[in-house]
Amino acid sequence: MCRWKAWHGQPVVMEELLFKTKHGLIDQSLHSKLGAETTNGDGNGVGWYGSGEGPGVYRSISPGWADTNLRHIAAHIETPLFLAHVRASSGTAVQQSNCHPFSHGKWLFVHNGLVNQFHAVRRDLMLALDAQSVGDIEGSADSEVLFHLALGFGLEDDPVGALERVVGFVEQTLRGKAIEPAVQASIGVSDGERLWAVRYSTEGRSRTLFRSRDVETIKRLHPDDERIERLLDSDRIVVSEPFSDLPGDWHEIPEATALTIAPGGAWETRPFAPRP
Amino acid sequence: MCRWKAWHGQPVVMEELLFKTKHGLIDQSLHSKLGAETTNGDGNGVGWYGSGEGPGVYRSISPGWADTNLRHIAAHIETPLFLAHVRASSGTAVQQSNCHPFSHGKWLFVHNGLVNQFHAVRRDLMLALDAQSVGDIEGSADSEVLFHLALGFGLEDDPVGALERVVGFVEQTLRGKAIEPAVQASIGVSDGERLWAVRYSTEGRSRTLFRSRDVETIKRLHPDDERIERLLDSDRIVVSEPFSDLPGDWHEIPEATALTIAPGGAWETRPFAPRP
Amino acid sequence: MCRWKAWHGQPVVMEELLFKTKHGLIDQSLHSKLGAETTNGDGNGVGWYGSGEGPGVYRSISPGWADTNLRHIAAHIETPLFLAHVRASSGTAVQQSNCHPFSHGKWLFVHNGLVNQFHAVRRDLMLALDAQSVGDIEGSADSEVLFHLALGFGLEDDPVGALERVVGFVEQTLRGKAIEPAVQASIGVSDGERLWAVRYSTEGRSRTLFRSRDVETIKRLHPDDERIERLLDSDRIVVSEPFSDLPGDWHEIPEATALTIAPGGAWETRPFAPRP
Amino acid sequence: MCRWKAWHGQPVVMEELLFKTKHGLIDQSLHSKLGAETTNGDGNGVGWYGSGEGPGVYRSISPGWADTNLRHIAAHIETPLFLAHVRASSGTAVQQSNCHPFSHGKWLFVHNGLVNQFHAVRRDLMLALDAQSVGDIEGSADSEVLFHLALGFGLEDDPVGALERVVGFVEQTLRGKAIEPAVQASIGVSDGERLWAVRYSTEGRSRTLFRSRDVETIKRLHPDDERIERLLDSDRIVVSEPFSDLPGDWHEIPEATALTIAPGGAWETRPFAPRP
Repeated sequence: MCRWKAWHGQPVVMEELLFKTKHGLIDQSLHSKLGAETTNGDGNGVGWYGSGEGPGVYRSISPGWADTNLRHIAAHIETPLFLAHVRASSGTAVQQSNCHPFSHGKWLFVHNGLVNQFHAVRRDLMLALDAQSVGDIEGSADSEVLFHLALGFGLEDDPVGALERVVGFVEQTLRGKAIEPAVQASIGVSDGERLWAVRYSTEGRSRTLFRSRDVETIKRLHPDDERIERLLDSDRIVVSEPFSDLPGDWHEIPEATALTIAPGGAWETRPFAPRP
Repeated sequence: MCRWKAWHGQPVVMEELLFKTKHGLIDQSLHSKLGAETTNGDGNGVGWYGSGEGPGVYRSISPGWADTNLRHIAAHIETPLFLAHVRASSGTAVQQSNCHPFSHGKWLFVHNGLVNQFHAVRRDLMLALDAQSVGDIEGSADSEVLFHLALGFGLEDDPVGALERVVGFVEQTLRGKAIEPAVQASIGVSDGERLWAVRYSTEGRSRTLFRSRDVETIKRLHPDDERIERLLDSDRIVVSEPFSDLPGDWHEIPEATALTIAPGGAWETRPFAPRP
Repeated sequence: MCRWKAWHGQPVVMEELLFKTKHGLIDQSLHSKLGAETTNGDGNGVGWYGSGEGPGVYRSISPGWADTNLRHIAAHIETPLFLAHVRASSGTAVQQSNCHPFSHGKWLFVHNGLVNQFHAVRRDLMLALDAQSVGDIEGSADSEVLFHLALGFGLEDDPVGALERVVGFVEQTLRGKAIEPAVQASIGVSDGERLWAVRYSTEGRSRTLFRSRDVETIKRLHPDDERIERLLDSDRIVVSEPFSDLPGDWHEIPEATALTIAPGGAWETRPFAPRP
Repeated sequence: MCRWKAWHGQPVVMEELLFKTKHGLIDQSLHSKLGAETTNGDGNGVGWYGSGEGPGVYRSISPGWADTNLRHIAAHIETPLFLAHVRASSGTAVQQSNCHPFSHGKWLFVHNGLVNQFHAVRRDLMLALDAQSVGDIEGSADSEVLFHLALGFGLEDDPVGALERVVGFVEQTLRGKAIEPAVQASIGVSDGERLWAVRYSTEGRSRTLFRSRDVETIKRLHPDDERIERLLDSDRIVVSEPFSDLPGDWHEIPEATALTIAPGGAWETRPFAPRP
């Protein structure tokens, strides 16, 4: 159910990470190895920070592997911070408004996972949204509702805390309807400066999520790789699934964990504890 | 804000009415004369009854004039009852799930008009929907919410009554927020046997809507027209805007009126009186 | 490189064969077992005979599994003869005009396979087309050029002979450029009455192609299957890949063979022998 | 038949010229005043120079007015040189590969106009292309063939000369078939440093084309306009149709004229004289 990746570091042309790595994200759209599905062909999207106000977003129902616009955009936009996503629908329509990243003001949001039996609980979840958010919702995806819940629960002040409250609220709501397990949630969020990544699932068997190891180690592992040579100590990558040409360069983010990456590349993790 | 047409009568290949008349619906997608906008290029759709369970529906974000699939489908599906629509968005996204006709079970629904300041009142309107309807909503259009309200307010038992209750509810809701006028609603509905058409607006200046005159009169007006020769006394057409090659063949449906066409072509009108 | 199927027999609603069988064509779009690729997500299409002049055609860049229009059309069009196709591009663009079936007058054409190094030889192959055909070509696929070559080489008079001349011409052209092997060609053709299927490849290792066994045998194998009970002795199916819920019901069409199915279901095979 | 614009000057966010001016290009997609058609809804595209190798290109079949991806890209890409286009088909399919700009290596190409009776002469024109160009052609538009002819006739060495030879060749070819008039050609070309614009038609009644006046004059005309205050003396704009909020700021490019804009903004015109 989807794969995503994020870059936080020096400015790069996005294709470096989307198309030019072995088993990069776009390859994963066709041949995912660790995902719940092999094919993530129900749309794609990228959101990036740079010129203009807030993030730029490109979303399309084309499978990532076949999208010439994505290929061009990725090859011609340079950015220090971006999130990319390939979608495998968990049942909702294949339409642009269901594609990730979702955006609001300066915020971007990607999600791999699902709200269990979302069709049955969508009304209960949307009741917690205000008029502005309900008016803003364009599609039918669970992820879009999660994002608007997060905005309403304080994403802009305390991202991890807001996501804990969202997941707690969803778990409580579904428990009230005897729907188990409630949530699968590998989530990426950014405000253009920091990057947050969450790995969590109610059942404790979450979709995979990895962060890149420290650059010094990566360089030691690949002493003659010209592209890796260019990495700075402050560069950080988060991925649903590692690039296969960089074995050994990844730390699996543990279950129920939130990762924060700050400007300069400093990172910290903390337990992710949903609370209603 | 959209144009639509409906056919109720002998089986016809849809293109006869969509492409082969002068100023037919697809021409109106590019050159509407009576609509609020000249261009209705924000998607198109047809729903028809015939083979299979319930109606078939084709919807696309392509402008009607450019859609080769629409052209093919219209030329190769024969049906005794269909509704067709070309869309001009009143602000919501151009996406397939916002295109008409909307369908549910055996019901089809098309709408030309709008709910005023829909973004601000969407939440209030959706509160009147049950979990099933909220789960079914795929897009962001006011028309889709109107359709689901109608289903919840008894469309399947009393279509005109249900639409009166929907419009009354919307007017009441918007009045509570000091939004005036509330609704423009030229609506077409069918269950595969009967066809209902409503012309109404809160301000009393509704989008145009016409029904074809009795076939005997039409034939008298066009004594040598081969295609008109084929019309049966029971054939009925409802259109937002008349075909220009059939002048004199149309009755304007009055303000605040509901039209019902029964199998066999019998029709009756009654006042359309919204009530909260 | 694509999967296709054809039905020739009593009128059926297309979804019976596209969606309602186990491992039917749409399932093969996501999980092909015998194809050169697992995923056939680069578009889909159906062409059918029935109402209107010549065949109706629906083609879309959406993956078959995600296409609600395809689902609706398949569920609401009843036809005695149709061809359906899911595409995996061999390099050319994902666009509607590259999707199958291709059509001209009353003819439909689907192709699974490729012309080797098509980019390099497209000019040489198009030189054999007349002005009308070159003007008609809308896309960039090898299959579209093969179809127009076949039209120019006599498809309408002698379909199998024309295809033999096309393949012979392509083999000769590529041999002149030292491109080996030349062609993979599992091809389906119809004029609305008869259905032709060809299995051929220059290297003698062709994509799979199967025809259904005689209906009597199928019924004996599935004595209690209600849907199979409805089959008539004259019903025929041709598929790139068998439906998995009908094991034992298929004859593999041999290498270098052309199959003709006539009205009434009579079929015959003959060797397929390309000649320049 | 299409509208286009080009910017050559200081880096700007593209939306400044596409969305933020009165009667800018995207408004012209819906309400063209000087074009052969009012509606230019058959697709849109932008090509820009900046990060990455050669130009980035975004093309879509969505009408410009409805394309959220275009809006985002325009708002978040800053570039010193771009070409944008909204399309009104002169008969060929609405598909991404028929949308402008066309690109090859570092070259971008937009075209407003048509080759008369293109369907009948496409083969004759394509005969002048080499195998590489024929293989590269993805769509069915006359403009794409003109671009590849120009590449073959020396665009990269002498852009205006090559376009003169292309137009001469087309005129000669069509004259040989007694097709008159041959060509309408308002063309924009860039290699990322210079910008060329041509206004020509065989009949001497060409589509409109304008260049911006010298910046000093524009500033004198709009003494208090903050956005105009930011213009540099070297900034240049070429448009099919002037922005209505800048009256008096435009020079019409004369019939049969080629304009060249060099780095630094120096411009010169010369007669455009097709020769076979």
